[in-house]
Amino acid sequence: MGINVRVLLVLLLLGLGAIFYVGAKTSPIIVFVFSICIISFLFSVYLTKWVLAKDEGPPEMVQISDAIRDGAEGFFRTQYGTISKMALLLALVILGIYLFRSTTPQQEASGIGRSTSAYITVAAFLLGAICSGIAGYVGMWVSVRANVRVSSAARRSAREALQIAVRAGGFSAMVVVGMAVIGVAILYATFYVWLGVDSPGSMKVTDLPLLLVGYGFGASFVALFAQLGGGIYTKAADVGADLVGKVEQGIPEDDPRNPAVIADLVGDNVGDCAARGADLFESIAAEIISAMILGGTMAQRCKIEDPSGFILFPLVVHSFDLVVSSVGILSIRGTRDSGSKSPIEDPMAILQKGYSITIVLAVLTFGLSTRWLLYTERAPSAWFNFALCGLVGIITAYAFVWITQYYTDYKHEPVRTLALASSTGHGTNIIAGVSLGLESTALPVLVISVAIISAFWLGHTSGLVDEGGNPTGGLFGTAVATMGMLSTAAYVLTMDMFGPIADNAGGIVEMSQQPESVREITDLLDAVGNTTKATTKGFAIGSAALASFLLFSAYMDEVAAFAQEPFKQVDIAIPEVFVGGLLGSMLIFLFSAWACAAVGRTAQEVVNEVRRQFIERPGIMDYKEKPDYSRCVAIVATASLREMIKPGALAILSPIIVGLLFRILGSYTGHPLLGAKVVAAMLMFGTVSGILMALFLNTSGGAWDNAKKYIETGALGGKGSDCHKAAITGDTVGDPFKDTAGPSLHVLIKMLATITLVMAPIFL
Amino acid sequence: MGINVRVLLVLLLLGLGAIFYVGAKTSPIIVFVFSICIISFLFSVYLTKWVLAKDEGPPEMVQISDAIRDGAEGFFRTQYGTISKMALLLALVILGIYLFRSTTPQQEASGIGRSTSAYITVAAFLLGAICSGIAGYVGMWVSVRANVRVSSAARRSAREALQIAVRAGGFSAMVVVGMAVIGVAILYATFYVWLGVDSPGSMKVTDLPLLLVGYGFGASFVALFAQLGGGIYTKAADVGADLVGKVEQGIPEDDPRNPAVIADLVGDNVGDCAARGADLFESIAAEIISAMILGGTMAQRCKIEDPSGFILFPLVVHSFDLVVSSVGILSIRGTRDSGSKSPIEDPMAILQKGYSITIVLAVLTFGLSTRWLLYTERAPSAWFNFALCGLVGIITAYAFVWITQYYTDYKHEPVRTLALASSTGHGTNIIAGVSLGLESTALPVLVISVAIISAFWLGHTSGLVDEGGNPTGGLFGTAVATMGMLSTAAYVLTMDMFGPIADNAGGIVEMSQQPESVREITDLLDAVGNTTKATTKGFAIGSAALASFLLFSAYMDEVAAFAQEPFKQVDIAIPEVFVGGLLGSMLIFLFSAWACAAVGRTAQEVVNEVRRQFIERPGIMDYKEKPDYSRCVAIVATASLREMIKPGALAILSPIIVGLLFRILGSYTGHPLLGAKVVAAMLMFGTVSGILMALFLNTSGGAWDNAKKYIETGALGGKGSDCHKAAITGDTVGDPFKDTAGPSLHVLIKMLATITLVMAPIFL
Repeated sequence: MGINVRVLLVLLLLGLGAIFYVGAKTSPIIVFVFSICIISFLFSVYLTKWVLAKDEGPPEMVQISDAIRDGAEGFFRTQYGTISKMALLLALVILGIYLFRSTTPQQEASGIGRSTSAYITVAAFLLGAICSGIAGYVGMWVSVRANVRVSSAARRSAREALQIAVRAGGFSAMVVVGMAVIGVAILYATFYVWLGVDSPGSMKVTDLPLLLVGYGFGASFVALFAQLGGGIYTKAADVGADLVGKVEQGIPEDDPRNPAVIADLVGDNVGDCAARGADLFESIAAEIISAMILGGTMAQRCKIEDPSGFILFPLVVHSFDLVVSSVGILSIRGTRDSGSKSPIEDPMAILQKGYSITIVLAVLTFGLSTRWLLYTERAPSAWFNFALCGLVGIITAYAFVWITQYYTDYKHEPVRTLALASSTGHGTNIIAGVSLGLESTALPVLVISVAIISAFWLGHTSGLVDEGGNPTGGLFGTAVATMGMLSTAAYVLTMDMFGPIADNAGGIVEMSQQPESVREITDLLDAVGNTTKATTKGFAIGSAALASFLLFSAYMDEVAAFAQEPFKQVDIAIPEVFVGGLLGSMLIFLFSAWACAAVGRTAQEVVNEVRRQFIERPGIMDYKEKPDYSRCVAIVATASLREMIKPGALAILSPIIVGLLFRILGSYTGHPLLGAKVVAAMLMFGTVSGILMALFLNTSGGAWDNAKKYIETGALGGKGSDCHKAAITGDTVGDPFKDTAGPSLHVLIKMLATITLVMAPIFL
Repeated sequence: MGINVRVLLVLLLLGLGAIFYVGAKTSPIIVFVFSICIISFLFSVYLTKWVLAKDEGPPEMVQISDAIRDGAEGFFRTQYGTISKMALLLALVILGIYLFRSTTPQQEASGIGRSTSAYITVAAFLLGAICSGIAGYVGMWVSVRANVRVSSAARRSAREALQIAVRAGGFSAMVVVGMAVIGVAILYATFYVWLGVDSPGSMKVTDLPLLLVGYGFGASFVALFAQLGGGIYTKAADVGADLVGKVEQGIPEDDPRNPAVIADLVGDNVGDCAARGADLFESIAAEIISAMILGGTMAQRCKIEDPSGFILFPLVVHSFDLVVSSVGILSIRGTRDSGSKSPIEDPMAILQKGYSITIVLAVLTFGLSTRWLLYTERAPSAWFNFALCGLVGIITAYAFVWITQYYTDYKHEPVRTLALASSTGHGTNIIAGVSLGLESTALPVLVISVAIISAFWLGHTSGLVDEGGNPTGGLFGTAVATMGMLSTAAYVLTMDMFGPIADNAGGIVEMSQQPESVREITDLLDAVGNTTKATTKGFAIGSAALASFLLFSAYMDEVAAFAQEPFKQVDIAIPEVFVGGLLGSMLIFLFSAWACAAVGRTAQEVVNEVRRQFIERPGIMDYKEKPDYSRCVAIVATASLREMIKPGALAILSPIIVGLLFRILGSYTGHPLLGAKVVAAMLMFGTVSGILMALFLNTSGGAWDNAKKYIETGALGGKGSDCHKAAITGDTVGDPFKDTAGPSLHVLIKMLATITLVMAPIFL
């Protein structure tokens, strides 16, 4: 073992050396990015050591925690086993496609043959898939270890419990964001050195980012199945447990007598932690790559002397993100503020304070980055316009978080109206929740509309012009705004990861029958976690919406490169293109249907199993018999693996099939670009419908959850009243909305973009 | 009085003479259309005399029927009073806009000044609005008179009851379709003669249809508010009555002890009959006018010698629709088939037989019409291609009806799965219903996609070419397919109107406490009515989807005419245009939200009122005290008038505001057509999202309703079981989906098109 560690260390150092060597040969900016990422990894090692040093509490807690860990790790192994097989198969398909496709004139000029480009794409795809898998694993690894430590700390102080949960979340956030950045950077540097970019007769650096699209697709591919499988798991267990436990038997949440309770707690880890890690990883990767592509295209059009600043800008923004978020995480201390006088501190206020610090620092570093990388003598004031674009993005992020809170927090009117609608029955509760969710799409769309247009305008007027004197910076302006929006991603992800850890800790406290005072602390943390989870979804969908226009433009750039002719218009007045749009929107509806139905079906299995156990083991209710937790875990695991395939396959196959079909139709009717145009419309309509549908699903789900919580505070009759029962129905309906279909749509939107980017050659 | 009738007769004859005089001066085709419409009106007079000659049954039935009639007519008066005030206001706005807008070069050439064109548009708008109002009134007028006669006949035989309901429905279908056709024809002929079309130096006949758009907008405007107000009324009363009566008190549907029952029965008339009449009227009017515009444009491009055949084709198709549907209606006889041996005949089979007769005749007359009107020496086989387009439309109609039945009829798997999901609780029932509805959008979209592409292709290859030799018939091909789809509209509308009449008859039977055997007959008719209502919605949304592409093209033609430059592309790669798309989809979500929320809110008021009456008058449950029906009627009427304004205003104002805003933005940034392009994208994305959302809402609502009915047949525990209670929750949620938001979206989709057509001048 001693030797192994040494060998590993040497290998690691060698690897690091190699990375820095290619980095140094590429650009000093890459070296900077590498350094920050390495430092962040060291910081995350510190965080995890700090968390693991905390005590695990009494044996009854450890026992429950072990059961959760076993369940989560078992499911993770099986799930990622299935996913990796599918990823390998897809890698072979991509290899085949790229070996028989046409190459772009640039590639031919730079001597990149078919096989080289095929291997590059497949390698990028696999690296993206592996990193995404690691991101998911890390999220789960830390949460199944932190949960019990948070429970134990809750016996001592709320502040300490909060700090442990935040630092555990911070660990995986650092790893997820850092890995997305360093992965893209390594690929970029390796290709740069290997292909001899920018040397005479070789590829131009502005074309390099197009080679990275495979990385984004690999990441989205894994994230899609991780989110689907995990989402179905967590919500099927949750819905099943609630329907029998809470509604039929009237026992509280996470009660040890409920046979589905361990499955529910496992679900928090595989659904919320692992899947959200993979989700954010692919978001950041896809958005970085699209922004790099657009930066490259623009730099080339404007003939900027050194385009690497424009291309590498997104990597630097995310490096600073790691730095400022670390400061934010460290600002949350384990002891009470000396100024605080109230008996119980609001954990939300503490987290918000950390967020404010992060935001202020992010604005500063963002301005710094634009001045450093986007200053060009051709347009001396352009960097300032782009800094303003970043500000637009940061404000948009803020607005999204605020809107999500307005619609999902019971401090505000919408959730109170929803709670009131529960007092007239299950039916009016559902109608009100659906209306609330549908209505909640309006403000975010208005915000995004203003953001897209103003960022585009700021970029457009930045002074950057092409050879003909036409302003060309518009699209890059929206890209910079997207980067601005994501410039605090690591801190937001930390707050998000905090939620399921607190939720799990609460479960462990309840199951190990701790005193009421301990449960109160974890309940408080859990409630805050619900809000942060909802706001992260708002943040994620906001960035997806802002990025959608970006990804779409990157696709059009790529098609133009392959087709060797301009591809600037997607004309929806052509019937086939309109049909593509119809199909794109339909894909979103069908995908959501299958995701929700999967949860519903699996939950029915859980309900029947739990009912069976209650009948066959009547002693469970008096604590005389132990329920068989493992059967519920097994049922949910098997079912969710089975159920994730159908929606996942739909998402991946339908754009490919549509593109191929219309390509063939186009070749018969004499429209050479028909396939690509139809796919573009599909992507665009699908993205718009996806954004709206995800907003609807996330918000209505969150609002139902909190309407129930509001009633549980004693309003409108309180726990056990008919009103509460109606609210639980709403909460149950909202579960698959907000934690399965909604977040899967986030991934789907970006995967549609990356899959069309990778598959573009076969549509032509 | 004697003199009055004579005066009226003389006036009528004079009017008829005038109509035929201008008709004869325009085209023999117009004379043909006039003649058929007049004959149909005479036929509908015969039908209504036949229905009114039937007996009204015992006094207790008449008493209930009178209460329903008073409620319905009272609401109709107030509602249409409000609507007509808004319509007058809007007419003034349109007048103002048209007086200050620019004119097209064609209009200038033909000497139509600003003021003439303003008066033309406003007159068309007002005529459309008035006709739409009449269509709604006729639907309600006959249903409040037929319901009691059907109840009375049900005491004698099922067949007779069926025949009365069908003939009453047939009366209003004839009037609705006939009025849509004759209204457009009169406007066309009047403008033709008045403006001296086709004489040298005047307007060309191919530009004439553009003057008719005001008619379509007037019709949609009234239909939107009729559908919203009526839909909110009927479903708020229904949901309120069900939640307290069925769920809380356990009394059956339409029980006289329920204080909301009269409001519920009134709702069937103002919601389903009046609103559906107005809805179908505007559908047919809007689709006729768009097809005429496209026919005119194509005839002009191809330099066809006599373009009137292409322009007037839609009017002839609908004239034949009146003829073949009359035959279908008459084929349903009051005595049993001699061949039928089963003890109870299936009313659905009888209606289907009539539909089959109608379809076969429609195929024949459609072929005839294409040969008559679309034959041109320039492309001798074109008419046959267009006849095939018609067939595509008819097959599409069939496919839509089949798909709707598959997803909403409990003979098939989806509804059975939904019923099974009710056995595990309210939550799983809702999740399964939402999934079912979302999934049900897939097949219709595939069918529509195939229909649009194949009809376009048939038209494209018809041999019609423009001056440059480019094929130009594609778009007209989709227009002909739409006409094919609508070629049995009158019969379909008859089947639809049959539903609420049967429903009302059942209510009267239950309330007047008739023997069980009578209730069985009306229950059977009611169940069939549910299916026909659902299939009509499928038919309506199918035609809207097929027509959407048509309406969109008509809009682009109009913009091109005003802008005096080609407008052939809507490029969603421009950020503002993409934002327009986002806003269009968002409009659909927000509109649906407000429509559902309006029902929810009003239903809560009803629930509280009914609960109050049960508490304050404890004798109600023992039939010792009479409930106060009129208070519920008043509450629902006031609330639905108040609630219809917000979604209606949203639908009308948002395209105008968006168009104006981006027109101003465009004039600052140097994009002259920006406003028109953004509105085009808004229209297109809104239409696609609207089609999908309406399919989702209609199908899930219908499925929930029938899952409940399936359980009521005794399956899964039958009436009163927990499973049944969960199914009632689903049914309640489905009510506003399928009868308020869904059908309002049908109208909205077409109104978006007509409002943009009328308002196009101010976007430039």
